[in-house]
Amino acid sequence: MSTENLTLRRVGIDTYHENVAYLHRDCSVYRAEGFQALSKIEIHANGLYVLAVLNVVDDESIVKRNELGLSEQAFKQLDEKEGCNVQVNHAEPADSMDAVRKKINGERLTYEEYYSIAKDIVDNRYSKMEMAAFLVASGQTSLDRDEVLYLTKAMLETGEKLDWKEALVVDKHCIGGIPGNRTSMLVVPIVAAHGMLIPKTSSRAITSPSGTADTMEMLAKVNLTPNQLNEIIHQERGCLAWGGTAKLAPVDDKLISVERPLGIDSRGQMIASILSKKLAAGSSHLLIDIPVGPTAKVRHMREALSLRKLFEFVGDQLNIHLEVVITDGRQPIGRGIGPALEARDVMQVLENDPNAPEDLRQKSLQLAGRLIEFDPDVRGGQGYSIARDILDSGRAVGKMNAIIDAQGRLETRSFEAGKLYFDVCSKEDGTVIEIDNLQMAHIARIAGAPMDKRAGVDLFKKLGDNVKKGEPLYRVHAEFNSDYQFAKNLCNNNIGYRIGHADQIPTSFVAF
Amino acid sequence: MSTENLTLRRVGIDTYHENVAYLHRDCSVYRAEGFQALSKIEIHANGLYVLAVLNVVDDESIVKRNELGLSEQAFKQLDEKEGCNVQVNHAEPADSMDAVRKKINGERLTYEEYYSIAKDIVDNRYSKMEMAAFLVASGQTSLDRDEVLYLTKAMLETGEKLDWKEALVVDKHCIGGIPGNRTSMLVVPIVAAHGMLIPKTSSRAITSPSGTADTMEMLAKVNLTPNQLNEIIHQERGCLAWGGTAKLAPVDDKLISVERPLGIDSRGQMIASILSKKLAAGSSHLLIDIPVGPTAKVRHMREALSLRKLFEFVGDQLNIHLEVVITDGRQPIGRGIGPALEARDVMQVLENDPNAPEDLRQKSLQLAGRLIEFDPDVRGGQGYSIARDILDSGRAVGKMNAIIDAQGRLETRSFEAGKLYFDVCSKEDGTVIEIDNLQMAHIARIAGAPMDKRAGVDLFKKLGDNVKKGEPLYRVHAEFNSDYQFAKNLCNNNIGYRIGHADQIPTSFVAF
Repeated sequence: MSTENLTLRRVGIDTYHENVAYLHRDCSVYRAEGFQALSKIEIHANGLYVLAVLNVVDDESIVKRNELGLSEQAFKQLDEKEGCNVQVNHAEPADSMDAVRKKINGERLTYEEYYSIAKDIVDNRYSKMEMAAFLVASGQTSLDRDEVLYLTKAMLETGEKLDWKEALVVDKHCIGGIPGNRTSMLVVPIVAAHGMLIPKTSSRAITSPSGTADTMEMLAKVNLTPNQLNEIIHQERGCLAWGGTAKLAPVDDKLISVERPLGIDSRGQMIASILSKKLAAGSSHLLIDIPVGPTAKVRHMREALSLRKLFEFVGDQLNIHLEVVITDGRQPIGRGIGPALEARDVMQVLENDPNAPEDLRQKSLQLAGRLIEFDPDVRGGQGYSIARDILDSGRAVGKMNAIIDAQGRLETRSFEAGKLYFDVCSKEDGTVIEIDNLQMAHIARIAGAPMDKRAGVDLFKKLGDNVKKGEPLYRVHAEFNSDYQFAKNLCNNNIGYRIGHADQIPTSFVAF
Repeated sequence: MSTENLTLRRVGIDTYHENVAYLHRDCSVYRAEGFQALSKIEIHANGLYVLAVLNVVDDESIVKRNELGLSEQAFKQLDEKEGCNVQVNHAEPADSMDAVRKKINGERLTYEEYYSIAKDIVDNRYSKMEMAAFLVASGQTSLDRDEVLYLTKAMLETGEKLDWKEALVVDKHCIGGIPGNRTSMLVVPIVAAHGMLIPKTSSRAITSPSGTADTMEMLAKVNLTPNQLNEIIHQERGCLAWGGTAKLAPVDDKLISVERPLGIDSRGQMIASILSKKLAAGSSHLLIDIPVGPTAKVRHMREALSLRKLFEFVGDQLNIHLEVVITDGRQPIGRGIGPALEARDVMQVLENDPNAPEDLRQKSLQLAGRLIEFDPDVRGGQGYSIARDILDSGRAVGKMNAIIDAQGRLETRSFEAGKLYFDVCSKEDGTVIEIDNLQMAHIARIAGAPMDKRAGVDLFKKLGDNVKKGEPLYRVHAEFNSDYQFAKNLCNNNIGYRIGHADQIPTSFVAF
């Protein structure tokens, strides 16, 4: 390590998940140590250290020759005052990269190896490209079931864990891929109204047109501190907030920040990601929703069953009571796709509006019913009717309003969609035999969702509906002219619907 | 795209191979477009654009609210003046990432797909993690031989090509892994003295204790502009400079900047890397050196043969006259490991010093002989003796001095090794039966090579030498106390030598 001291300086640059250090090109330490721009260095101060990627500076107003600058995240992590003495040296590559290279060669890794990888990732010893190497390697040869267990456990053990001091803490999770599938916003108030603890946090959309957190944001604040969250959950038995502020299974967030932009997705990583987060959040009982359909993430029943077994295996080993439901993923759920339109659907169901989308209502009641049956005092088979009573009686909407108030109600409520819109109409008489989940999600995103909350798609026709030539199938809403035009071009290319005969509709092999 | 204009500003931060853009957090474009730190954006000015990773700034002395800052590389690439108007928008992911995902799923790619990947990488559309995904995917399932050809061609076609306007342009390349293997510094002067054109450029060490460019830097400047290089090559028929300034097969440099830190290595990538560079450099005839040994990159003869065939297949398809020699890679070549010690060995051979290491001399003569036989006027089998005549007569050292003078001779010549040193001695009587290439390279690196040019290892004993208990096997030189100590600890752990009986020495199956 260089014995020369540098003076710590905070550089007002936000580099998100990546620590960056700044050294002046004429700094003697930079020259002596033979650092290169983008190489990884260790910065030590008073026995503590952080790792950062080096940027070389030619401007003394950013850092002077005797200073070491840190980006905001790195500065916060080192947790020292500006002006203190720091020393720097080359960071050695993470030891666990040996295990990653083993995986690249197709070998099986042990729990200890997965743990060392997870630990090094949490400690910021991995660059994004090292994480990408791990993800591609473990996605490609696909992990065997013991490895999925090891990875899940490693991701769980390298983060904090919540303890609610209750025997029954329930949660639900859908593996995703179905637009408009906002059941959590119904399930949480119903289950919490039944008195069960459901401390569910949600994500924002990354590749989809809306996440539960984006839709909930039409009604209430979702960006809460861990303390606020804790208080709301104790008071209301449930919440509908963004989960990004907690430090549960932190490896997962880091891996997702690489996995999503790469557009890669592996079964083993998905299961480890879901289960490590839920276990860390202190859940004792978990319901997993796997939608199956020709344009869903899971396209065949055999695939859904093998995924179910993998979930069950890992869940059983890690001592969580886990149940999997395989649901109908042939088309979007509800009518709206995009934050405002989805919020409208949800509130229609909660408020028992006769126009409420029946599929969203039914699916939510089924899921809530299964969660309620985790309650030992509820007789098997009674969950659904308890859930329905809670919804019909107005207790669900009452609980939803209480949660909204606790999180911070928005001043005005409006689900009005973007003022620029066009309708996509059927080119023939017939029956809707296919709605492409991927294309509908793509249209909603191109129209501006989730960034523009009022952009999205409103479906007028669903599978099995009869249509006449020229009759509108759905309406696309946008807020900006350019988005409107992009969405229109996309629809001209592929409307995402197929019209045919009723007997061409693919059969759903699932209960709900 | 945002229609709002920002003012371009150059930010004095060097971010090496990665373009970075800086926007103030309160900049209206940043807010309206929903950018995130580390997301990729496009910066447009007067019909041109660059791609960059976004950093968010909280300090108006770096960028003001109406400014867009670019790091030095990005600013240079955009090639516009400070103060001009720029617009920004989200960068779409590179289209060719679809092909990368196909490869991750184990599919075979076409030439068009490899070309689109190479083109997007050259155009800076790939982040480091996307390149890592491509490298791991194509390393893991391993490319078939047509794919190696496609990748090589794609890497070649996306860069510039040199044309020397001569029928015979020779080059040599070793796949690496053997410490002290500085044959290029002998082969180039011998072959150039014979009058053949050998425009060889060399790399610096990335994971080894010294590259040819590092060792040559003990004698002359190696960091030359493409124009200087061109002039020297025309004048001297050869050179020994660093190749980093040319734009030959630029994809290769970008991939290597990811591959090396990850420590991954695949056959297909290696062949594409070597051949695309050599073809771009205008070589018509190429000699490839594959050392084989228990601690070399290639450990078995069958592996060396299959690698040879792959080189030959791709070379033949791309119209380069290629020959492969399989050489003895059981131990380091010469005595010194590290820039100063290797330069000493090389000059001893060139100056016909009776103490010159015979193995370095013999290997260099063999390789130079093979290259000389590419000359149609040389009778088959005569190359070696022509090479030896050139070396023995002093014409080789004369040519070397001319090259050194042309590149820029260092004022003082000294091969003295680092003043801190210790000897590692044999613990028993016997014969040296193994010298671990990897461990010896590791010791030299830990001692400070190649950064500290006088650090390294000096071997006193080689395979087959008899030793007495307590007799020194090698000496480790360092320049700094801490490095000295680290190297000592490493040697205590594993000296890298094994002593036994002469009949335990692994047989070399190769000619030289």
